[in-house]
Amino acid sequence: MKDRKLLMIPGPIEFTPEVMRAMGMPTASHVAPNFVEAFGQALERMRQVFLAPNGQPFVVAGSGTLAMDMAAANLIEPGDKALVVNTGYFGDRFAAILQRYGAEVTQVPALAVGDVPDLSEVEAALAGGDYKVMTITHVDTSTAVAADVETLAALGRRHGALVVVDGVCSVAGEEMQQEAWGIDLALTASQKAIGVPPGLALVVAGPRAMDAFYRRKEPVGSYYSDWSLWLPIMEAYEARRPSYFGTPPVNLIWALNVSLGQILAEGMDARFARHRRLSAALKSAITALGMSQVPVAPDRAANTLTAPYYPEGIDASVLRFINEEGAILAGGLHPAIKAQYFRIGHLGAVNASDILSTIGAIERGLVRAGYRFEAGSGVAAAQQVLAGQE
Amino acid sequence: MKDRKLLMIPGPIEFTPEVMRAMGMPTASHVAPNFVEAFGQALERMRQVFLAPNGQPFVVAGSGTLAMDMAAANLIEPGDKALVVNTGYFGDRFAAILQRYGAEVTQVPALAVGDVPDLSEVEAALAGGDYKVMTITHVDTSTAVAADVETLAALGRRHGALVVVDGVCSVAGEEMQQEAWGIDLALTASQKAIGVPPGLALVVAGPRAMDAFYRRKEPVGSYYSDWSLWLPIMEAYEARRPSYFGTPPVNLIWALNVSLGQILAEGMDARFARHRRLSAALKSAITALGMSQVPVAPDRAANTLTAPYYPEGIDASVLRFINEEGAILAGGLHPAIKAQYFRIGHLGAVNASDILSTIGAIERGLVRAGYRFEAGSGVAAAQQVLAGQE
Repeated sequence: MKDRKLLMIPGPIEFTPEVMRAMGMPTASHVAPNFVEAFGQALERMRQVFLAPNGQPFVVAGSGTLAMDMAAANLIEPGDKALVVNTGYFGDRFAAILQRYGAEVTQVPALAVGDVPDLSEVEAALAGGDYKVMTITHVDTSTAVAADVETLAALGRRHGALVVVDGVCSVAGEEMQQEAWGIDLALTASQKAIGVPPGLALVVAGPRAMDAFYRRKEPVGSYYSDWSLWLPIMEAYEARRPSYFGTPPVNLIWALNVSLGQILAEGMDARFARHRRLSAALKSAITALGMSQVPVAPDRAANTLTAPYYPEGIDASVLRFINEEGAILAGGLHPAIKAQYFRIGHLGAVNASDILSTIGAIERGLVRAGYRFEAGSGVAAAQQVLAGQE
Repeated sequence: MKDRKLLMIPGPIEFTPEVMRAMGMPTASHVAPNFVEAFGQALERMRQVFLAPNGQPFVVAGSGTLAMDMAAANLIEPGDKALVVNTGYFGDRFAAILQRYGAEVTQVPALAVGDVPDLSEVEAALAGGDYKVMTITHVDTSTAVAADVETLAALGRRHGALVVVDGVCSVAGEEMQQEAWGIDLALTASQKAIGVPPGLALVVAGPRAMDAFYRRKEPVGSYYSDWSLWLPIMEAYEARRPSYFGTPPVNLIWALNVSLGQILAEGMDARFARHRRLSAALKSAITALGMSQVPVAPDRAANTLTAPYYPEGIDASVLRFINEEGAILAGGLHPAIKAQYFRIGHLGAVNASDILSTIGAIERGLVRAGYRFEAGSGVAAAQQVLAGQE
């Protein structure tokens, strides 16, 4: 029997065979013509995938946290005010990063774990302060809560703040229209819906963010994150000229270009719709199995991951059974409820078969853990959504 | 005919098939048991390859410049004094990074391009200042000059400075005994003699460096480089406990563990000896072909790369012919002499066949460029060294 398990965590995820082949190709020189062409093309495709035709892409070796670091380090000067719209663990992290670079940070917390902040509170905060930057975590990977980025970004813009979106668990999965929604900077990491193994920090900065960077009076607080050093490199590769600052991660960038090509071949609207449909199917199964979810209402829930509470009498030990049954899921991450819930990632190249297989593994794991329910009710509920009969 | 060309630049280099297979393996979760084991083992092996049994390894997604950034950001507090022993382009870079984090930097320049600084000047500088940190570029990739790290480190220690070695073009190729030579921090990048595609910053900090970090009064200037955030992660994985700060670059770390295993199977002394022998063979060929080298004397020349001046009447256009003949070499990098020389990397898994093939391609390229010499004189000279008849 095949022993390969489905990797259904919120990143790293299942990657396509073409992406993995690019990872294993004999590494070229960072100035080789075929690498220069691939890097240049990847930068152009970044703009299309982020839906930011006038944005400046940055592709740098690092984790998603480096992408957050780049946003804060390049936009913040000591004493600047920043507003963090906090929906969980990664809002806390953005606050810490902004503070490191000298920002005075104000946070608008979520109304509760699994909820978003009150819009009127965000608006009152924006009206009461002179914020240079506002950050929003689009999908908080710790809670599976999706913020209403379109509305929040409009609010931030109206009050003159640069709108920064942590799209680590959203870009190329959850719908985000960077330019149309007035987002000044969006960021993600390769191992999420972008569909490339971990190791790349990905940022697209819009014209207002670049202007704020050009007008800085103080040098950027971090050397490695400093756009002054990376911008000429990105411009050179996009113009198909080899260049050197730090050696680019050749294989990861090949893989990125392959994956961005696959994303654009699917089409952004079709991709967002697929994520919505698969998410609805999985969530329908979770409900049918008698589990509630961390997001307090369906309109707060992300389409890229699902965070069910364990049912009565079941704890995190069920994850091992589910793993043995074929699907690798993630435990809780939010400190306040860590032991009470688990997380299922369904982003990137995920398809309907993966969703059914995952629910099957969850059901069989629950049976082994002693939970009483009608086996098959989860897969049936999902299948109705997948087949358009819901 | 096979059209695969040898990648003989100072990184990325030719990687082994086992390393490339690890790159292309289906990515695991960063908390999967087989990944936790591989990461833990890689950290242990880092200590052995750096010859630093009491060192603390850091393996983080980034380029070699991030490793330099980590050294400066964690060891320097604003106002600290730092001495840069400068042998080229990467000495300049270290000075810039140290300054970014608030250091007052003094540089001791090389006596000339291709030379090292005068030891008595370094000693006078150390005696005259109260330096917290001294940096040495072991092998400057821009000049192929190797610094006498053992002697310089002893000098630095005697005057109370933390000795930081940029080993990007040396670790696991050029002999470096981190602990025995009193080096407090050594760093490199994956794509050099470590033998893994680009994307990992690698640091081993000795006890005195970690002490200086623990005694900091100011927070680290960069968030992403801050050891406070990475140290618990490195400790957890080495104890075979999964942990999370930023998602580790799973495939690169698998590849790192494979390559470190291959390095240790060869043995560090045998590996250093192989690099010396292959370097001597190649340099003998370069001399036989009538070319001089950037390092002003053989005892200043690295064993991991060679930097020949083009012979009379030949310029950088010969590199294209050499490429077509089967070997990819690098152009000049040092601004003062950029157009007058080229660079050949011979580090990592390189063997005698690669050396002969490379010299063969250089000879045929030179013939096509119109240089007059006796074809075969280069490969013959190298072969005498390789066969032990020199």
